[in-house]
Amino acid sequence: MDSIAQAGVKTLRFLAVDQVEQAKSGHPGFPLGTAPLLYCLWDRFLTYDPAAPSWLNRDRFILSPGHGSALLYAMLHVAGYAVSLDDLKNFRQWGSITPGHPEYGLTPGVDASTGPLGHGFAMGVGMAIAEALLGATYNRPGYDIIDHYTFGLTSDGDLMEGVASEAASLAGTLGLGKLIYIYDDNKITIEGSTAGAFAEDVGGRFTAYGWQVLRVGDSEDQEALAAAIKEAQADKERPSLIIVRTHIGYGSPKMDDASCHGEPLGPALTKETKEKAGWPLEPFYVPEKVREHFAAKAAEGAKKQAAWQRLWAAYEKEHPALAEELRQRLEGPYELDTEALADLFKEKTKAATRAASGDILQAAAKQLPALVGGSADLGPSNKTVLKNIPYFSKKERTGRNIHFGVREHGMGAALNGMALHGGCIPYGGTFLVFADFLRPAIRMAALMGLGSIFVLTHDSISLGEDGPTHQPIETAMGLRLMPNVKVYRPADALETAVAYKMACAERKGPSCLLLSRQDLPVLNEHRATVLAGAAKGGYVLSEAEGEARAIIIATGSEVHLALAAQKELQAEGIAVRVVSLPCWEVFEEQDAAYKEAVLPSELPKLAVEAGATLGWERYVGSRENVLGIDRYGASAPGGVLMEKFGFTTAAVVAKVKKII
Amino acid sequence: MDSIAQAGVKTLRFLAVDQVEQAKSGHPGFPLGTAPLLYCLWDRFLTYDPAAPSWLNRDRFILSPGHGSALLYAMLHVAGYAVSLDDLKNFRQWGSITPGHPEYGLTPGVDASTGPLGHGFAMGVGMAIAEALLGATYNRPGYDIIDHYTFGLTSDGDLMEGVASEAASLAGTLGLGKLIYIYDDNKITIEGSTAGAFAEDVGGRFTAYGWQVLRVGDSEDQEALAAAIKEAQADKERPSLIIVRTHIGYGSPKMDDASCHGEPLGPALTKETKEKAGWPLEPFYVPEKVREHFAAKAAEGAKKQAAWQRLWAAYEKEHPALAEELRQRLEGPYELDTEALADLFKEKTKAATRAASGDILQAAAKQLPALVGGSADLGPSNKTVLKNIPYFSKKERTGRNIHFGVREHGMGAALNGMALHGGCIPYGGTFLVFADFLRPAIRMAALMGLGSIFVLTHDSISLGEDGPTHQPIETAMGLRLMPNVKVYRPADALETAVAYKMACAERKGPSCLLLSRQDLPVLNEHRATVLAGAAKGGYVLSEAEGEARAIIIATGSEVHLALAAQKELQAEGIAVRVVSLPCWEVFEEQDAAYKEAVLPSELPKLAVEAGATLGWERYVGSRENVLGIDRYGASAPGGVLMEKFGFTTAAVVAKVKKII
Repeated sequence: MDSIAQAGVKTLRFLAVDQVEQAKSGHPGFPLGTAPLLYCLWDRFLTYDPAAPSWLNRDRFILSPGHGSALLYAMLHVAGYAVSLDDLKNFRQWGSITPGHPEYGLTPGVDASTGPLGHGFAMGVGMAIAEALLGATYNRPGYDIIDHYTFGLTSDGDLMEGVASEAASLAGTLGLGKLIYIYDDNKITIEGSTAGAFAEDVGGRFTAYGWQVLRVGDSEDQEALAAAIKEAQADKERPSLIIVRTHIGYGSPKMDDASCHGEPLGPALTKETKEKAGWPLEPFYVPEKVREHFAAKAAEGAKKQAAWQRLWAAYEKEHPALAEELRQRLEGPYELDTEALADLFKEKTKAATRAASGDILQAAAKQLPALVGGSADLGPSNKTVLKNIPYFSKKERTGRNIHFGVREHGMGAALNGMALHGGCIPYGGTFLVFADFLRPAIRMAALMGLGSIFVLTHDSISLGEDGPTHQPIETAMGLRLMPNVKVYRPADALETAVAYKMACAERKGPSCLLLSRQDLPVLNEHRATVLAGAAKGGYVLSEAEGEARAIIIATGSEVHLALAAQKELQAEGIAVRVVSLPCWEVFEEQDAAYKEAVLPSELPKLAVEAGATLGWERYVGSRENVLGIDRYGASAPGGVLMEKFGFTTAAVVAKVKKII
Repeated sequence: MDSIAQAGVKTLRFLAVDQVEQAKSGHPGFPLGTAPLLYCLWDRFLTYDPAAPSWLNRDRFILSPGHGSALLYAMLHVAGYAVSLDDLKNFRQWGSITPGHPEYGLTPGVDASTGPLGHGFAMGVGMAIAEALLGATYNRPGYDIIDHYTFGLTSDGDLMEGVASEAASLAGTLGLGKLIYIYDDNKITIEGSTAGAFAEDVGGRFTAYGWQVLRVGDSEDQEALAAAIKEAQADKERPSLIIVRTHIGYGSPKMDDASCHGEPLGPALTKETKEKAGWPLEPFYVPEKVREHFAAKAAEGAKKQAAWQRLWAAYEKEHPALAEELRQRLEGPYELDTEALADLFKEKTKAATRAASGDILQAAAKQLPALVGGSADLGPSNKTVLKNIPYFSKKERTGRNIHFGVREHGMGAALNGMALHGGCIPYGGTFLVFADFLRPAIRMAALMGLGSIFVLTHDSISLGEDGPTHQPIETAMGLRLMPNVKVYRPADALETAVAYKMACAERKGPSCLLLSRQDLPVLNEHRATVLAGAAKGGYVLSEAEGEARAIIIATGSEVHLALAAQKELQAEGIAVRVVSLPCWEVFEEQDAAYKEAVLPSELPKLAVEAGATLGWERYVGSRENVLGIDRYGASAPGGVLMEKFGFTTAAVVAKVKKII
């Protein structure tokens, strides 16, 4: 008779296989290979309460190869989460909570959306940073309020991806000892043996990163797995990678063959595999003893959770200020006072919006202890460093500044992991053009509804001499294309303040702040208009003197060009309105009447933005009505470039005359 | 008195510093630190002829940290390339050939554009693949036509970037022994000491990748540098990383300090540094003996080049067929016969465009030996594998299939490197949604004018069950935003054939082929129309019966939905035209009369594409006239999704009725 562990592992294996069979779609090979790994973790190590899947101090678990979702759903079902057998039977169907890849927010017990390989791995690094930071900041003797592990399963595919490499190096540098990954070393990729593309010594690589590397030769040996996980937990100084030699499609006739990766086994092979395992052919079978075993685990978990709630209650009494601060970090509200932020620039006539961003961050960090962030090694340029606050490091765990290194993608994923953990409003800086490097992380934040903030400076050809590789052209519009992403391109320090207020308050999707390298006038003379208007995404910054014959719509630095052109046109007797449109997405959320009032349909409109024209037709109708840039930039001083690329008052004036 | 090497190194250092001073912009720290590395390489190892900077068999050199461009320009000037002192004096100015970061095609001797860190490193891997492949394919006893090294300088920033990690692992697996990188190990990043974010053991990591790792402790020791480079060359089985302990800002008062990275030293410190080095204060000073030394090198290089030309002439006689094939690979024309490709589908009523792409690739690979490629481990899904052709590996150097591994970004950069080398039309496959992972590589291909081909399958929510992480929404339009990129979304096998013909012929920018996972009807009944029309980027696929009252514009799979709607509308007496628009960029190249004939201004238009609506206003005027998707997808069978997301004949019919 099977031991409870054997039965449990087989339950997971075949629940996963049955889901794939039922859906006629999915990935059976991974669950068959890695069920023992997940079982061991959930059976002996993971701290969880299936009735409280969002409990702050639970251990986190990330299934980085998200295509193995059927295994995770099987585990969640068996462990007692609100994932029913019917849910498993609806695997990969419309409206189910068991989609093709795990989706955060949809399925109880899923701690992160995964699918794009490498990203899950890197998000775990962010979670472990958040855990260490919050623990060091809020734990007090006798009150280990934040004290949990971040576990994950990872795969060859993850470890080939650059984003995982970036995050692994960062994790080693930061000594994230409570980060533990089990590596499904099955030697097989979709195209065949890993020898073809991935002959490296993974263990050696991780040792070089500063990780503890452990090995388990036989994936079927629960004791060996448990011993390795214990050893991983014992090392508090280094993250751990447990390399387990597994076999894709274990126990099936397709074992160790790439063909069992991404397609159902089919009824015949499923039958054969179950028979060979001595398992009932009945689909979705869960032995009673396995249910009972995990019911007992769930009860244990509930007790732990209850004990933690008592600890928290005592902590609230003993350390009320800390408790309140932590609660606010976790739940908000995340309110910034726009007027106070605007006051920072009262005396200023000009400021680069990146510099304004830096000033605002200093003030915001005082109001919002949750603000934690850094830059992909461009802190001094992005102005993202919080002054008089230490850097997060092996030795200083309370630091809210993070050196992410030259690792945009890893940074983006880590920000998402921090947001997932809770207690952090994470932000990360780089040059706007390098948003392309972390675009997949912005997308994941958008999919998961995470409020990661991306501080993207040097936002146009105006950055100057660094030239076309550093000059965004298509980047701003490329970000606007992404659903559930708010893209702010503020015209000045005041609009930047509003953007920060909204980005910090926005916890259901990422915000991108596109900021200038160069100085821009501060619109202090329009202060009230700017603060109220920018909060609506778009507004009449400067009304026409007399009846408007056209509207100039601009964003960011080009708003000032629009104002200059307006003046010149007025002098010639041509009245035009200037609309600043710092955030399309917020403007679109306004009611139709407001939008029509700002941009009346009947007036001709000219859009001015130092970037791609495509997309602006949405507001101005025709590409003839856009002053933009549809080629790559060049290396020269910023002012020279703006002139050479046609961004002059004269050019705007001429364009307006043409369209009226 | 300085030795020639000392004088040469100082010449490079101060030519670089003087450029930065003159421009009042740039990066002096890197050149001061790494001048001896570049000097040693060019003095003793690099095979080059400054008068023939495009000579096929020259050694390649990549300055991966492109911000050190001033050093490269100094070197090119001293070595005798067509880079004058005046060019150096115009560093970072409008119209100069000495831009902020090196630009391929602009400056003689610049083998690759660099700037975005990591990318240069990864392109070198592609160059080394091309060299090994071409050498193995075309060299014959006594005729080592292709036999050169790929050298590069690399930095902390590069080695933190995931793209370099991906490429390094691939290079180790492939055993690219003629790839040699010198690592500027200066322990400093923009944010300070590398200890903050990059504490890893780089040597250990590269050993794990399968590289030979060598170390030089003193960057000022030319003999030690030379010995290491010799050792690197001696190992033919492994790529080499030579770790040189350097000092950023060497010899200046800011040595070893991050502050000398990205801003000019200023006149005072420049003076101090020159004086300390015993160097004349005169800007742009080049000692005569250094000029003479490199003039002799240039003469040597010219001799080598002439000898190679003689070898080539003899090879042409001895191996005419091989020579002709290689010549065609290098120079083209790269002609595919569209009719013959279309014939492949004569008998077919339906085919997924990814499957059609696979069939076309088989035929194209026979006509164009330059076609070399693979997939980021999705070959069986992307249908990118060339049948009966081996994989490129350590043992099989003639293979034209490449296992890139799950490394989209590294693959993209490697494709660019292969294109830069010449002799290859490189292609790489992944899912369309993961185009985001390699977007920076597409951008670099566009900037450099390289004809890399990106085969992007699973092009909409129609891919089905894999769900939102795998379903592109904003991706197609995001690619269309990029200047100098051709984006094809063919409606069927025939349009796919045209797209391949154009992508292979196009050698001045990358092409992206967006292909369906699901079967699509083959438009054989419209064959002549399709083949002629697709070549113009957009065309009337199906004319209205009677006077058209509207136009439905569609791409890819949605073209068939448009055709079905047209039929239904005609049955109701509403005549509409269907326009297929597989490639916006090619359509835009047509003359105004053609465009107006296809899309007459006065007719209302509806765009139908299963992707973001933003951007379609360019052709249809208003977002009301677009049937698209402005949210992320979901996990369910593809057919179900199309219905749930409103892509039904009935919906198209209703929309048309609304707009007429």
